[in-house]
Order: sequence, then structure tokens, then C-alpha cells
Amino acid sequence: MRNIAVKLSYDGAAYHGWQTQRGEVTVQQTLERAAERVLGHAVKITGCGRTDAGVHARTYCAGFETDGTIPAERIPFALNSYLPPDVSVSDAADAPPDFNAILSCEKKEYTYRVVISRVRDPFLSCRAHFVPRSPDAERIAAAAKAFAGTHDFAAVRSVGTETRTTVRTVYWCETETCGNELLFRVCADGFLYNMARAIVGTLLYVSEGKLEPEDVPAILASRDRRLAGPTAPPGGLYLTRLWYPGPVGAMFGGGKVSLNF
Amino acid sequence: MRNIAVKLSYDGAAYHGWQTQRGEVTVQQTLERAAERVLGHAVKITGCGRTDAGVHARTYCAGFETDGTIPAERIPFALNSYLPPDVSVSDAADAPPDFNAILSCEKKEYTYRVVISRVRDPFLSCRAHFVPRSPDAERIAAAAKAFAGTHDFAAVRSVGTETRTTVRTVYWCETETCGNELLFRVCADGFLYNMARAIVGTLLYVSEGKLEPEDVPAILASRDRRLAGPTAPPGGLYLTRLWYPGPVGAMFGGGKVSLNF
Repeated sequence: MRNIAVKLSYDGAAYHGWQTQRGEVTVQQTLERAAERVLGHAVKITGCGRTDAGVHARTYCAGFETDGTIPAERIPFALNSYLPPDVSVSDAADAPPDFNAILSCEKKEYTYRVVISRVRDPFLSCRAHFVPRSPDAERIAAAAKAFAGTHDFAAVRSVGTETRTTVRTVYWCETETCGNELLFRVCADGFLYNMARAIVGTLLYVSEGKLEPEDVPAILASRDRRLAGPTAPPGGLYLTRLWYPGPVGAMFGGGKVSLNF
Repeated sequence: MRNIAVKLSYDGAAYHGWQTQRGEVTVQQTLERAAERVLGHAVKITGCGRTDAGVHARTYCAGFETDGTIPAERIPFALNSYLPPDVSVSDAADAPPDFNAILSCEKKEYTYRVVISRVRDPFLSCRAHFVPRSPDAERIAAAAKAFAGTHDFAAVRSVGTETRTTVRTVYWCETETCGNELLFRVCADGFLYNMARAIVGTLLYVSEGKLEPEDVPAILASRDRRLAGPTAPPGGLYLTRLWYPGPVGAMFGGGKVSLNF
């Protein structure tokens, strides 16, 4: 049995997230159907994480097993011929037998895109969160530091998914100004349900003066979701970088990927 | 009676072009409906040109008359509250009594976006034309020169719209490389039906060796649409700059507008 890893990207606007759900169109189901047509057998695809409805992936890793003989380098073209234009596979490789798209993932980076504009940009509809005024970068930077490190992140997760533990390690939580955009970058060993969006929503609350930067450590310590800021809208969130060991890691450029939107 | 000029932009993917047509969703009709809700009376809107189905406008000028008293600076916000997210009004001004969005337009620039990639980018679906290999920039530049100047452009227009004359003046027809994109920029005093896309299709034929750069003057002189290249797909085409005299011209920055896509 071969273990295949594929690299893809998708515009999540039309999807009810990654994970297959009854009665909803999801990326996983869309990819499984394309793989079944290519491989000629039923395929169970594992993703590197569950993105929510409307969340995008600039980069994503999915894995599946097959006894088919199609060369790995032909898989992207073959899958793309059965995929809709908002999902695109760019690379594929034979992975080690113990590779698992979610369990082997060492860390992930999400980028949240805030566009500062009083007028909506029709080309960014469902692809960014619009705010009318410049967020307060200093207040945000002061608050963002509190998320870095190993913490119990229960205060910034939505209930709905079972997890063994709500402790995660955030490697960085930073912002970057790029023209009229403010990009929030959060890298962690794993993300709880809605965690990236709740962190951004909390930082925007700090920017607006609804919370103080120095409140954030106590909010985290409380484990109380009601004390943190709201969950920012899904359209601004993109999965932007993935880190894996070995040959699959090389496919993802050791985390170095283009961050153009 | 006031004569109002508005500046807008739209993602054309979901529209059957600018101009109202029976049974099709168009940008004109969408804007007229929003204006009627804002102004409380029927509104006939004139656009700066007919963009085809699926063609985009980074910038667009539309005009209408009203006896309403709403201040011009409140019009963008008021219209946007009734417009879908893929159409957005960014500015409005009281225009001189003789202003007409199409007749007063001195020149327009269209930009055609070709992305060089063997893999589709899901975020550019319906927003760019993908080619697997780098076009031959030297051959294209040599051929593009032939379009500049005052010519009869009947060889690069599709039949379907009545016009008094098929003579137009092209101020420039150039390409620019931008990362893995090749941008075609064509500026003219007016465009015939499908003219920008037929020019791009002809230049891509030259790049591929299906036509020679030195064939282009004879093709133009023939006035025979069958001799030129195909009409490039609509999703790559954007209206990017407009020039008007007087106060409306100032609203369009004297042709200087951001060309970010």
C-alpha cells in the first residue's frame, strides 16, 4: 500500500469547511470524489486540520492510501481535471508509511487578513475582514505577546469539537502591515476549534479599547470563552504555512511558502 | 435636475456584463435597483462602456440624474447598503450638466491578466487567464506596436453591436511582467465589442508562433475578423483606468489609479 501526500490550496468561500458533513459541500468530500475517479477505488482522505466554513487554505496537506500505480508527479494534473476551479492540487509525493497529514504536522501558521477601508473591495468579498479605521498596532502588539508560549487556550476556543487537552504551544502571534492591510500571523503546534479567529477577535477588541492589553493573560488563565473577544469572521482567515518532517516537509518548503493572497 | 457621477468597481464573474438585458443579471440593472431604493424614484444609469459577461472593472464610471437632495458624499455609503458585495461604489460627485459617462470619457485603459502557471490558482478562478509556459515577450512586443495609433479595428471586433465607425485610436498597447503574471495594457479613445480581448488573443497567437509579428498590420488592414487570433477569455480582463475632463476627471485621479488586482 502506498501512502500519498498532496499539497493543495482552496478558496473556502463556497465550502462548509474541510471536513465531510452530511448535507454540506466540503473540501474533503470534493477531493475524495476526485481521487476516486482518478484511482478507481474508494478513498478516505486525511487532512492536516479542520478549517471552518468559509476559511481558506493558501496551502494544505492531505493524505490517502492507494494500491494504484499512478506516478506521484501525475497526481496533481489528474486530480485537477476532476476538481472545481476553487480547489487546486499543486504537488504530490509518496510519503513514508507512518506519515499522517494531521498527526505528522509539526506546526501550522494561519494568517488573518484585515483590510483597512471604509469601502468594500468587491475583489476581496469573503476574502478579508474590512475595518473602517486603522487598528491600534501598539495595543495589538502588546496584547499579542500574551498568546505566545504554552498555555491552556480554552478561553479562545469554541465548544463543539472533542479534544484531549486544550493546551497548545503558540510559536508566534504577530502582526505585519502590508499597504492598507494588517496581517495577523499565528503559528502553533495545533489549533483548537475557532482558536485563530478568537485570538484575532480578542486583539481587535484590544485595539478598539474594549479590552486592555494587560487583561489578556488573566482572560487566558480564566479558561472562560465569554471573557475574550468575539470570533472574527471566517473570510479573513487563511492557512498559510505547514511544517512536516522529511520528504513531505520539503514539499512544503520547510514552511517557506509564498504568502501572496 | 442634478447630474451625478459615481465611481465604482465590480467583480464581473457573476454578471452578464454591464448592460441590462432581459432575463440576465447585469451590473447596470443591479446598480439601478440600488439607486431607486436610495433615491425613491426610477433611475436610468449610463455607464462608461459595455463590459462583456465575466469582465471586471477595477474602476468604472456611471452617471444618473436626480432631483433628490442627498449630498454627493453620502451616495457611496447609501448605494453600498443596497448593493451585493461584488459591486462597490467608492466615490460620487455632482457633475456638470453636460456630463455623460460614455460620451464625456476621453480614454480608457483595459488590463488583461495572464498568469503563467501549470497549476490553477483557486483564488484567481475567473479572474485571470492561465497559460502553462511564459509567453514570448519579444514577439508580443513586436506585434503589439502595430495596434498603437489610429486604425480601423474591424479585424479585432466581434459583430453584435452597431457602431458608426470601426476606427479607433489606441494610445498604447504594451505588456508588463509582474511576478508570474504578464499584464497586457491597452488604452484607447474607445473599444469595439470584444476588441481588447481579440487584441490579447492575437498577441498570444503571435507568442505561440501561430502568427508572425509582421502579419499584424496586414491583418488589421484586411478588416477580416477571421485572420486575427481568438477572443481571449473574459475573466482576465479588467477596466483599470478612465480619463474625463474637469471635476469627474479628478475623481478618477487623472487616470492614475491603483492597479492592484
